[in-house]
Amino acid sequence: MKALVYRGNGVVKLEDKDKPVLKDPTDAIVKIKYTTICGSDLHILHGFVPTCKEGTTIGHEGVGVIEEIGDGVKAFKQGDTVLISCMWSCATCKMCRRGLLSHCEKEEGGWRLGHTNDGTQAEYVRIAMADSSLHKLPQGVDEKAAVMLSDILPTGYEVGVLAGDVRPGATVVVVGAGPIGLSACMTAGLLSPSLLIAIDRDPSRLEVAKQLGATHTIDNSKEDAAAKVKELTNGAGCDVVIEAVGYPATFELCQELVGFGGRIANIGVHGEPAKLHIEKLWGYNIAIHMGFVNTTTTPTLMRMFEAGTLKPDQLITHEFDLKKDGEQAYATFGAAAEHKALKMILTNL
Amino acid sequence: MKALVYRGNGVVKLEDKDKPVLKDPTDAIVKIKYTTICGSDLHILHGFVPTCKEGTTIGHEGVGVIEEIGDGVKAFKQGDTVLISCMWSCATCKMCRRGLLSHCEKEEGGWRLGHTNDGTQAEYVRIAMADSSLHKLPQGVDEKAAVMLSDILPTGYEVGVLAGDVRPGATVVVVGAGPIGLSACMTAGLLSPSLLIAIDRDPSRLEVAKQLGATHTIDNSKEDAAAKVKELTNGAGCDVVIEAVGYPATFELCQELVGFGGRIANIGVHGEPAKLHIEKLWGYNIAIHMGFVNTTTTPTLMRMFEAGTLKPDQLITHEFDLKKDGEQAYATFGAAAEHKALKMILTNL
Repeated sequence: MKALVYRGNGVVKLEDKDKPVLKDPTDAIVKIKYTTICGSDLHILHGFVPTCKEGTTIGHEGVGVIEEIGDGVKAFKQGDTVLISCMWSCATCKMCRRGLLSHCEKEEGGWRLGHTNDGTQAEYVRIAMADSSLHKLPQGVDEKAAVMLSDILPTGYEVGVLAGDVRPGATVVVVGAGPIGLSACMTAGLLSPSLLIAIDRDPSRLEVAKQLGATHTIDNSKEDAAAKVKELTNGAGCDVVIEAVGYPATFELCQELVGFGGRIANIGVHGEPAKLHIEKLWGYNIAIHMGFVNTTTTPTLMRMFEAGTLKPDQLITHEFDLKKDGEQAYATFGAAAEHKALKMILTNL
Repeated sequence: MKALVYRGNGVVKLEDKDKPVLKDPTDAIVKIKYTTICGSDLHILHGFVPTCKEGTTIGHEGVGVIEEIGDGVKAFKQGDTVLISCMWSCATCKMCRRGLLSHCEKEEGGWRLGHTNDGTQAEYVRIAMADSSLHKLPQGVDEKAAVMLSDILPTGYEVGVLAGDVRPGATVVVVGAGPIGLSACMTAGLLSPSLLIAIDRDPSRLEVAKQLGATHTIDNSKEDAAAKVKELTNGAGCDVVIEAVGYPATFELCQELVGFGGRIANIGVHGEPAKLHIEKLWGYNIAIHMGFVNTTTTPTLMRMFEAGTLKPDQLITHEFDLKKDGEQAYATFGAAAEHKALKMILTNL
């Protein structure tokens, strides 16, 4: 089969690889229909995820059809169309029972797909603990759009909106309008904030943020974002600040945007320590949250997606044939601003 | 009257000063019976609180008797014995209505006492917005012990225990066993944690922590605190980590002690930025809280104090005559380890 394989030094290669096989009775083999590229995949390419070894098939998002199941799989059967969750979880360990699926204590629990184990950017993928790592896809939904529920929608919602405790009337600012930041914008809107500000350096992404419900956008390549947010909030700063970038500078910007009694919800994946201005913020009565997505909201998001309340198709900008143009898809996503790229669907039909 | 006055360069002087007078109709003048010295007072002495000007009377805790009230004071009358809250608040502005009394928007709202305004380490003190800045003291309570309710008990409870979301069965560690850390220990115990670990470099303070309910103590001048906490929690780290010191190093230690899904509640007053190991913690699903005490729990704590559920007298180690030995009290508190000093009561009888 064809697979997009990490080869070190920023290189991803479309290679021939053996089709995966069942290893444990709780495994499933899924034939991919649609997958996509995540910012984390670029992190891997650029060597920021040393736990991902060369030769690994990348990708942790996707929709496909169950090709084969082990004897221990009870919730799915061959031929089922499924959403692949970015997190593998056993549902029974202490962490899973606390809702911390991303910290599942099983050997293959947590973020494994396209990281320590071969991922979804291939014709077939092995899924461990299939009963709790897959979700049945409702009939008739847009299967390409459904791929957004593997990772970015639950991440924006859980780690941004819920961790930041967005409530009706809240003043919310999202720093970074990439796919994750836009997912946070989209799901923050469900809670009727009074202000929903998006900050980015890319005007086309800010345009999408507006379409997704942002009440204001700030291009921080041109404007002083902190001053503008102060102005929009009558000097108070925001109730909720969502970090969706992952650099020390953007995390420091968030610290300037938060008001007394507010929350910073960090979604960004950081590669180095950040400066915390605790000499100023110690008296602010704020909380800073950071964490992995636990995908505990995926069933709820799926219901809203099926009902049409969530329209994640708005995040899809490009489509490529995985078996033919997978490398080109990476090149396009790697120059996202130039190509106005958000989420790229890789098809395997 | 006599007053302990900040004179810069680490110096506090017992001086003669004019008795304060009513300025606004909502003011009260309180004759101090008992007051005490806080770690923040030492911060002022050493120049870490530039908003406190030389010539200011220090102190923001105390119990006294109302000497005089303005026409606008409705909740108190001359002769009432009162607890002086460290926070002044109007009870009606937006911040007060959100429970953020420490950020009261009135000109004299928030921490003013012994900071921007003359404080309680004097024979008399002016209290602004007396109706919401004072609490009536129940009859028959230990008035010296009650002074602990001005600041340290609500601070340990609100900014440590409640912000850290201590729950029954939680594993809790308190870094720093000074008066504030000990207040956090005492009030954490109310929530039946399964582990309550106190860390300090002073064996006598750790002894008090044990008396107040700590299940384990760690002298981090002798032991590797992070390794010991790992051992006590079977490698998991703690659910709640309470920082009660206020240095970059202790804040970094807290980051080593927190487990997946845990909370760091920072009480420490910090004078410089701290390093946040977000490159490790971004995926930990943790929250870090920091803030001023809002004293919204003072009435509840008062009820528990009156009922004998809370015994803050255990924190009092020394007693001095304010008018005679106020400077000596500072010298003793400044060498707290040598004198096994926790809270020093200054009397004005």
